[in-house]
Amino acid sequence: MTVRRSRDVPSLVAKAREGDARSVARLISLVEDGDPALPEVAAAMAPSAGRARVVGLTGAPGVGKSTTTNELVRALRLAGHRIGVLAVDPSSPFTGGAILGDRIRMQDHTADPGVYIRSMSSRGQLGGLSAATPQAVRVLEGAGCDVILVETVGVGQAEVEIASLADTTLVLLAPGMGDAIQAVKAGVLEIADVFVINKADRPGADATHRDIQGMLALGGRGPGEWRPQVVRAVAVKNEGIDDVVAAIGKHRDWLESSGTLRKRREQRAAAEISALALGTLRGRMGDLRDGTVLPDLAARVAQGDLSPYAAAESLLAALGH
Amino acid sequence: MTVRRSRDVPSLVAKAREGDARSVARLISLVEDGDPALPEVAAAMAPSAGRARVVGLTGAPGVGKSTTTNELVRALRLAGHRIGVLAVDPSSPFTGGAILGDRIRMQDHTADPGVYIRSMSSRGQLGGLSAATPQAVRVLEGAGCDVILVETVGVGQAEVEIASLADTTLVLLAPGMGDAIQAVKAGVLEIADVFVINKADRPGADATHRDIQGMLALGGRGPGEWRPQVVRAVAVKNEGIDDVVAAIGKHRDWLESSGTLRKRREQRAAAEISALALGTLRGRMGDLRDGTVLPDLAARVAQGDLSPYAAAESLLAALGH
Repeated sequence: MTVRRSRDVPSLVAKAREGDARSVARLISLVEDGDPALPEVAAAMAPSAGRARVVGLTGAPGVGKSTTTNELVRALRLAGHRIGVLAVDPSSPFTGGAILGDRIRMQDHTADPGVYIRSMSSRGQLGGLSAATPQAVRVLEGAGCDVILVETVGVGQAEVEIASLADTTLVLLAPGMGDAIQAVKAGVLEIADVFVINKADRPGADATHRDIQGMLALGGRGPGEWRPQVVRAVAVKNEGIDDVVAAIGKHRDWLESSGTLRKRREQRAAAEISALALGTLRGRMGDLRDGTVLPDLAARVAQGDLSPYAAAESLLAALGH
Repeated sequence: MTVRRSRDVPSLVAKAREGDARSVARLISLVEDGDPALPEVAAAMAPSAGRARVVGLTGAPGVGKSTTTNELVRALRLAGHRIGVLAVDPSSPFTGGAILGDRIRMQDHTADPGVYIRSMSSRGQLGGLSAATPQAVRVLEGAGCDVILVETVGVGQAEVEIASLADTTLVLLAPGMGDAIQAVKAGVLEIADVFVINKADRPGADATHRDIQGMLALGGRGPGEWRPQVVRAVAVKNEGIDDVVAAIGKHRDWLESSGTLRKRREQRAAAEISALALGTLRGRMGDLRDGTVLPDLAARVAQGDLSPYAAAESLLAALGH
């Protein structure tokens, strides 16, 4: 698209700090593209680290994530917050359809200067969305957002990783979708701080509620541990949204009073650092592909003369390990 | 589940080579779990490398991948092949629903000793399915399969990677799903060797066909390059399946006569070696998490004293880079 020069970065960062939406948008594009100027952006944004509370929303397709996000934004704006929304769609390189529909529904807030809305894809960043999303969160923090909602389609490992980057993770379910049982399979119990039973005016809401309560009872939490809240909502009618906001606030209070907030944020930083380091290593491995070491090993593996594990060891030796 | 001891591996491998289905199943479980005995399994299977033709099937949910796989298995069995089917579902940790339905439809062949059917998940393997799938292919090759179908849900980067591991990649589309346009977005044109327009008895099949032909015409292939075939089918009525088999055969002939087969397999081996090496590095990074280097860096990043990029550099230095 546009030529991006490294010398633009200080001015972009300065404007983003003043809340200029276009500069925020351009900085997040740099993040998505894995621009070489990223370390500079990250260094400039580092002092704002931890200013915003990060709320993850995840759930299977069709549970009403975007409508819920939309209503949460409305409620939080009324309470005076500046809000960033990152809609993360790891599936976009192939399908892209759902997110387009979602974006249209989110248009309610696009005229509001206190809300940044951005859908993310992993088009350039080494390490994919798991690496790009925390950097985008840092940009929004630097731009003065004090609540950042990260909405992910809850269908894979990457999304679970992204959800785990949040201070508070909401897992959305809907009655009659068999989600409660799926949630157990997926280990969602471990990442959910608040369960939102959306579309709670539909048949089966009581059964879903009972299922979750039953599973939570089996979880066996110790004293002082957070017991995930279960909230019912009908986001499309703006019902129960205040209860969701209250549950997020309650969790936030617990995070701070228990010292868990600091621990979670350090874990989040550790995951972020690891993802960036792995991205760098992946890049170096790509460079080796252009040399002769990897092609030679690959030819021997393809011929059946060498096992891929033995070849991987040789490759690591060539990388200096 | 069961205790797996390293000394079981030679006997499992020997039985798998004789075609014992339970031993094949246990070896693939070792692959999924990222068992420490994997390098030994891989070394034992290495001499069989390249015996099977690997056919990838991908496409958006709802295009009829499992039905098509089922009918392809039937046709290839009639032609006397031994067949392995790997149904790869990167989304299974979270949803799992779709694949369960698919497995039921695949039951047609479970009583046939010439067909191994296995759904894969990335539960243990470092590097996820991109690392595990080629190892599972090697096990099936070692067990005497000469055709291996790898079915993936075409919704993300991982699936595109897995599809690219195949000798021949089928991309399934269905009329009226807007897939043709999505396919361009996703760079599927580059990975597709054969387009299958499934559900071709539905309205819109002609339009989808024209869209694909139009896009292929724009592709600008040189002389001697493969021009992706477009085949129509109605898998649920077993119509057009022979044409799909013929297109796969035609592609196979081209792969061999052009020397591309060897090149693709070396690329596949290179991707496999890289994925294993990255998995090892990821594991070492996880070990660092238990030490003090990463936690110290993470605390400084969380406090805003250090940028995550600078921390990633320090982490790589600690890893010996």
